[in-house]
Formats: sequence, C-alpha cells, structure tokens
Amino acid sequence: MSKNNVALVTYRGSALENSHQAHVAVVDEAGKLLYGFGDPLRMTLARSAAKPAQALAVAQTGALELFGLDDSELALMCASHSSEERHIEKARQMLRKVNAEEADLRCGGHPSLSDLVNRDWIRRDFKPTASCSNCSGKHAGMLGGALAMGLAKDGYHEPDHPLQLHVKRVVAELCGLPLGEVEWAVDGCNLPTPAFPLDNLAFIYARLADAADAVVEGEPESQRLRAMARIYRAMTTYPELVAGEGRYCTELMQAYGGALVGKLGADASYAIGIRASEQTRRLGAKGALGLSVKVEDGNVNVLYMLVCEVLERLEIGTAAQRELLSRFHHPKMLNTMNRETGQARFVFELERY
Amino acid sequence: MSKNNVALVTYRGSALENSHQAHVAVVDEAGKLLYGFGDPLRMTLARSAAKPAQALAVAQTGALELFGLDDSELALMCASHSSEERHIEKARQMLRKVNAEEADLRCGGHPSLSDLVNRDWIRRDFKPTASCSNCSGKHAGMLGGALAMGLAKDGYHEPDHPLQLHVKRVVAELCGLPLGEVEWAVDGCNLPTPAFPLDNLAFIYARLADAADAVVEGEPESQRLRAMARIYRAMTTYPELVAGEGRYCTELMQAYGGALVGKLGADASYAIGIRASEQTRRLGAKGALGLSVKVEDGNVNVLYMLVCEVLERLEIGTAAQRELLSRFHHPKMLNTMNRETGQARFVFELERY
Repeated sequence: MSKNNVALVTYRGSALENSHQAHVAVVDEAGKLLYGFGDPLRMTLARSAAKPAQALAVAQTGALELFGLDDSELALMCASHSSEERHIEKARQMLRKVNAEEADLRCGGHPSLSDLVNRDWIRRDFKPTASCSNCSGKHAGMLGGALAMGLAKDGYHEPDHPLQLHVKRVVAELCGLPLGEVEWAVDGCNLPTPAFPLDNLAFIYARLADAADAVVEGEPESQRLRAMARIYRAMTTYPELVAGEGRYCTELMQAYGGALVGKLGADASYAIGIRASEQTRRLGAKGALGLSVKVEDGNVNVLYMLVCEVLERLEIGTAAQRELLSRFHHPKMLNTMNRETGQARFVFELERY
Repeated sequence: MSKNNVALVTYRGSALENSHQAHVAVVDEAGKLLYGFGDPLRMTLARSAAKPAQALAVAQTGALELFGLDDSELALMCASHSSEERHIEKARQMLRKVNAEEADLRCGGHPSLSDLVNRDWIRRDFKPTASCSNCSGKHAGMLGGALAMGLAKDGYHEPDHPLQLHVKRVVAELCGLPLGEVEWAVDGCNLPTPAFPLDNLAFIYARLADAADAVVEGEPESQRLRAMARIYRAMTTYPELVAGEGRYCTELMQAYGGALVGKLGADASYAIGIRASEQTRRLGAKGALGLSVKVEDGNVNVLYMLVCEVLERLEIGTAAQRELLSRFHHPKMLNTMNRETGQARFVFELERY
C-alpha cells in the first residue's frame, strides 16, 4: 500500500491547492490482482457501478424473456441516466411492459445529472417524478424481476424482500465472495447497494467482458454466461442510454466501440471490463481484464481524470481512442475570464502485484 | 502532525463511504499556534478568505474616504456574495461612487453561488455580467484603490500593477511574513490570490478581531488598526452582504452577533477571528483568537461541518449559538425518498501546541 494514497494533486500557479487520495485495482478474468495503487482491497460501496450485477439478478428471474425487455431496456437497467426525454420515455415503456405503473416505483425524483436537462426543467417549471430518476431503469427492472418471481410488487426495494435476497446472492456470487462478506446499505435511489473490496468490483467487470468473449468464441454457454454477455452487449450497444449526452460513461464506451464496458458509481467509484486482446495479455491476463477506481473523497471529476490516466498507463486501446476523452483526462482549469490558473498532476504509480 | 490527517469520514449504513483530510490551526492574537490538527503550517491558497486583507490594502490607499464608501460597501469588498439583487445593486453603486464602469471590471460573470438565484436567472434567461460576479465588490474596491493611488484603472488586476504590488506588501505584513514568503497565483475572479501557511491565515483573522477589541477599549489607534477594526465591523454588521441568503458565512456571523468574523475561501479554506473573551483566554490567548481550516480535497460542505465542530470543541460562543448552525454541522444524509442513508463521523483531535 502506498504511503499516503494521494493519486492526484492540483496546483494554482506554483502553489498546491488540493490533493485527492484514490485506490486502483486491476484484475484478470479469474480475479487475480495484477496491478494496484493505494489499497486495492478497500471495502468500497459500488453504488451504481453495481447495476450490471443487479441487472444480472433480474435477468436470472426470467423477467427479460417474460416481459419482452430488449437490449436497450437492459442498458437502461444498468444506467445512471441523465433523465433526457429518451431515458424517461424508455423507463415508462419498461413499466408498461412489466405491467407496473409509475406509482409502483420506490425511487424519488431529483434534479437531473445533466445541467442542460436541469435548465430545461427549470424553464418549464417541471417537477421530476420517479420515472425521471437516474435509476428509473433499474427500478423498473426490479419490478419486472419481482413479478417474474411471482412476488408482490410492494416493498420490492426493501432489503428483506425475496427479490433483494435473490439480488444479494447473485451479487455475492458474481463478485466471488461468500454471501456474508458483502455488506449492504441503502442507496440514493432507495434500493440496497453492496460494499465489497475494490478488486472484487473489478472482478465483476472482468467477468462481464470475459462472458462477451466466451459467447463470441462459441464456447459452451451457461444461462448465466449468456445473460452476462447480453448485459455487456446491451451497455456497449446503447452507451447513450447508460449515461447521456456529454457524460463520461457514454463517451468512454463510444470511444472504445465495444472493446470495453464502463460504469460510474456515486461518490466516485468506477469499474471497467476490457475484452481480451494483445494488450490485456501483455498485462498478464489470460483473457479479459477488469479495473476499478475509488476516489477517497468522492470527487467524480477527479475520478474521470484518474480512470483516463489508468487507461493510458495500461495502454488500453489506441492513442486516438484515449484522445477522444481528453477533456475528461486533462480538463483545463480556467477562471471566469477563461484564463488558465493551474494544472493537475498525477502522482500515483501502479504497482505490479 | 497526525498520521493520515483524516478529519471526517462518512458511512452509508455501516460501510465506509468517503474520507476527508483536513488541517486546522488555532492561534492567539500574536500568531502563536495554540491548537492544531493535520499540518497547521500547510501552505494554503487563501482564495476569498484573503478578501479582508485585500480590503485593508484598498482602505490604506484612502479610497474609502475619497469616494465615500460606507461600511456596507466595505462588507461587499470582503464578500463572496450570492449575486442577489442587493449584492449586484451595491456593486454597481460602488462603481458609480469610484467613477468607474462595469466595463472596467476584469472579473467575468458566472453562475451564482445560490441555487435560488440561478433558477431565477435561468427562468429569466439572464446572462450574468461582471457586476454579478461573487467578487464584484472586491473588484470595484480595487478600481477605487487604483484611482485613489492616482493610477490608471487599466490592468488593475495584473500581478505587476502598482496596486497589486501594494496589496502584496499589505497582505504579507498582515499575515506576519516577509514579502518573499507569500506565494501568489491567479484567482477564479482573475485577481492575484495569496498562499501562505494555514496558521498565518488564522493570524490575519485574530488580528482583525484584536483590532475590533482595541478600538472598543480606546487604546491608541494607528490608521491601520482603525481600518482593520472597520473591516471587522463592516463584515459583522452586514453578514448578509458577505455571502447571502442561507449561506454559511452569513448565518455564522448572524448566530454569533459580532463576537466573531468568518469567511470562506474557494476550494475549502475557512478563517475566523474571535474577539477576546473568557473563552479565548481559557484557550490560552491573551486577547483575540484566530482559527483556520483547509480541507485537502476542496469539499466545501465538509469544510462547514469541520468549522462547526472546531467551534464546538473549543466551546466558542454558547450551545444555543452553535445550535443555530446545526444544519451545516450535522447535515442529514437523505436519499431521494428522504430516507436517512448514513452519517458522518468526526475523527480528528485538536492537539495542544
């Protein structure tokens, strides 16, 4: 473990302004830690970075087939969307498909994650309801999951509801831990959210990418493997549904064109699954690679800078692909007169484990 | 120095979510360090917490008397205001008094520090101009200072303009350092902003409070002491001009009714000057006390929590006064369904120096 875990510092002129601690874990498709920074085993609340794992649990109820939920709707189940019209409309369509109503949702409305959408809402004096929640796809999917299991919709979000007990088992299995080693808390959107070591978060994403590889290679497929590959395909086919206009997750997956899947969690966690390539093998993986980052103070813009830097250090994708994300990687520190006042410096080194 | 400088951690359920490092310095009226946490000597960009020192430099040009700037206008010179109508109107009035125009200002417009004001601006499609900058009072004061010194207005904000050379001398003197030991960078509003050790920031505020005490006690007064006492009086008489509706600086000074002066700096620095009392003497000061806090990651809400906690640990003011700030001290972590999801814990101890 690094002495002080500081990964990024900002300077104003030549004076140190802020410093940010972070943790990084890079694992192979078997969950073996390859590289790390800080404490790669830090117990981390995955928040929305756990959505693909929660979506897998819903998929395993048979809800996707039962209600005819397509890949775009599966992508929305994994989304922290910007509450753009397309996102809200799709959430409402999912509710109709699973025979539920907006009143069944147990998430609340909140300001959009997009400034542009918020400005529009303020101009129109629009009050966001539950279907506008950035997690409305996840909640609509959970309602479908409860109904597919033959359960009542009521209380679907409660930690002791049978649907959530099922979700807990699937999440623990997927991240490779005994049930009792995953902690659960209540998320911003009111569903349970898991905490586990940061490298287990990376492992989930390595497995998603590995499933995508396996299905392409035509290996014998379990139902779970097919569902995982479908989640990978859904998120990478519809990156604009996973976040929104100008958001990092969307632009990251667009830049890499299916070679990786990435997702933000609130309070600055991030996870990426990278399909097997010469690069992942060079880094020591037999197949796919998973990586995860947590910023200790919850700063999301710093998180994006660090994720970009880790991708560069590991040489994931081409320089041209990484360049597409440069405004997240090297944002300019400009003042109100557009004068550049300082700069950020990456001060971490990835350790080989 | 503490091992890891972590001052506050947040939990979601029983899982650690974020942790925040910080530094605290508490000094007496002579600048002697009494208590500290983290690195009380951390070189710190004071940002807007330096405004009273910059205002002193303007006052020493004779601009207040020359242009008839009153205490409310002096308060605005020390403000990071919310761009409410009263703030913008007062900034424009200052410009008229010093015979300058909005076009002379070298700060730019920006979204308000107040959500309420921003929503109103968006509804009205209002584009904020320079007089709406949270620093417009400081800039108008600087223009007055340049004119009082018989200098051209042009370039008043540049680091090598004679006005700024004067400001640099005054700031260095006030914080008790040789000129060369204060670093300068460019602020968000385009004026130079100083960096010096955190305890020197506390010292500036101890001296402001000490000046207020000295003037009341009728001791022989230097021109500088009178100007410092006037700054203290201006800020504490018009706390609503120093920040705005619902903002911490405003509510803090209102709660303490003249017993202390406090000011935020961007990227989470804070400084408070406390007039002499039984409490300051009990803490080891002969007279006034100064305290300053810097959050390492720049989180302003965490800063407010810590400042409140330090005031409580030092037993500054009454329990009833501190209680008035409880929504800053102990903000509820609520999710979009108004469910409490976690809590913050203060994990620092002030060390006696």
